[in-house]
Amino acid sequence: MFTGLCAFPLTPFDQERVDFTAFERLIANLVAAKVDSICAMGSTGLYPYLTQEERKDVLQHTVAVAQGTPVMVGIGALRTQDVLKHAETAQQAGADAVLLAPVSYHPLTQAEVYSLYESVTAELSVPLCVYENPRVTQFTFDDELYHEISRLPNVAAIKIPGTPFGSAQGDAYLRQLRSLVPETVAIGVSGDKFGAAGMAAGCDLWLSVLGGLFPKTVQTMLGTINAGTPELSVQHNASLEPLWEMFSNYGGGIRVMATAAGILGYTESDCLPKPLQPLQKKAREELKSLLETLPLY
Amino acid sequence: MFTGLCAFPLTPFDQERVDFTAFERLIANLVAAKVDSICAMGSTGLYPYLTQEERKDVLQHTVAVAQGTPVMVGIGALRTQDVLKHAETAQQAGADAVLLAPVSYHPLTQAEVYSLYESVTAELSVPLCVYENPRVTQFTFDDELYHEISRLPNVAAIKIPGTPFGSAQGDAYLRQLRSLVPETVAIGVSGDKFGAAGMAAGCDLWLSVLGGLFPKTVQTMLGTINAGTPELSVQHNASLEPLWEMFSNYGGGIRVMATAAGILGYTESDCLPKPLQPLQKKAREELKSLLETLPLY
Repeated sequence: MFTGLCAFPLTPFDQERVDFTAFERLIANLVAAKVDSICAMGSTGLYPYLTQEERKDVLQHTVAVAQGTPVMVGIGALRTQDVLKHAETAQQAGADAVLLAPVSYHPLTQAEVYSLYESVTAELSVPLCVYENPRVTQFTFDDELYHEISRLPNVAAIKIPGTPFGSAQGDAYLRQLRSLVPETVAIGVSGDKFGAAGMAAGCDLWLSVLGGLFPKTVQTMLGTINAGTPELSVQHNASLEPLWEMFSNYGGGIRVMATAAGILGYTESDCLPKPLQPLQKKAREELKSLLETLPLY
Repeated sequence: MFTGLCAFPLTPFDQERVDFTAFERLIANLVAAKVDSICAMGSTGLYPYLTQEERKDVLQHTVAVAQGTPVMVGIGALRTQDVLKHAETAQQAGADAVLLAPVSYHPLTQAEVYSLYESVTAELSVPLCVYENPRVTQFTFDDELYHEISRLPNVAAIKIPGTPFGSAQGDAYLRQLRSLVPETVAIGVSGDKFGAAGMAAGCDLWLSVLGGLFPKTVQTMLGTINAGTPELSVQHNASLEPLWEMFSNYGGGIRVMATAAGILGYTESDCLPKPLQPLQKKAREELKSLLETLPLY
């Protein structure tokens, strides 16, 4: 399941409760677009903000609406014992794979992160995608850790953070990572600004927040890469630069995509749990204008 | 209650459950030393790792053993609605004050943090200590935010992050902060390496992880400051430099103090919830040797 587009939808809220009606609209949009897979409760899907009960409900809704589209689910938590609980719940509810980031409050050591993955993978019967995202976890995997973790049972993919592919630095990073992990482990690009270039550089899949709301945009870029014209994909991506600037200015994709989902009528206009807030006034108007003019669909 | 030493004890675990017997030993040590106040479930007390039920139990044990020593308690959580629940529980269980850091997974904006404190302070009947700690929350308060938050009802103190007091930069920071907040709001120093210098520079209280295990060490330094010989306090602090180096090398005080608590027999030798780990082998031996040679009591 670790090829093509893995779409990361929001988990929308209404008045502090998960808005399942809106969530099902978001999932149905992904199913209609025939995305390769769906990741429920990734970072944009707000997994750390949800109770165990909410996580179970969201996953069950995802699997029900996905109609056979493979479903991955975020299982991260501060404590290993909670990660194990989430993994068990995920498998019982029919997840096809799990996504695990080394969530922290006290930033973790390399040894602690290894022990976390060792404990969790030993209990799994579905594949696991290792998730590196220093911006939200305050943790960067070192080479030795990638070498070790990628050889644990059930480790099938790695979601790497935004990397400037197409540059010498980005391409060297990908070569180095490939040399560290077994060939069977898929390398997935995230940070949508770098998605097209990452796929053009040889990443196996695109784990996409953009694709969680605009799957056809990502599919169009993937299509031009597969057709042997990656330069068209990179051009398409460059035309989205005003959107990437908003991602950068407003703390990643979460606030921008939540606001966009409201503007487009998928969700309430404020679909985030407090204290998170959607874009306000001028920024919201700017985004609304971008949604009308950029190649987003 | 925002003067002198506010001691921050660990919340010790044994096999993934809170070890209340060990916890009561830690609190009794603080009561015997006559600390000015105790903060249960600060960062070192692992508040984000605990369920609501565990938080309630830990606080009730603290209040029972504290025998009238004022008790503050950490109420932070990712979601505002959970912070409000923790605040309510804290007040019902007899907390004298609450400590609130802007906990995040997606790093928060200044406006989001203001709205969090606005919502929480409106519901409080005890004083609140604002808690800035960028290392664990990924958030830095700007001047305008301090100006606004310090004027909210029930805001009585600010716990500032480690600041190099005694230097021009550190002293300028304190002057600037004093100019922003009302005189009635206490400014508390944390980051034990900077505690003695901070109190000598005029901070109102020392919020101390070191004092959570070695209260008399901090009280000795406070005593020399109060006696008009702050240079003795700064000397004492300098003699602890090997300990501050361990704090720095092992991700703050949490792993070092948890290991020390085990070595000293207050707790099991591994008293942290997984994936957190105490110091291993050589580092543990190094700490053991420091505990025998440094002025820690």
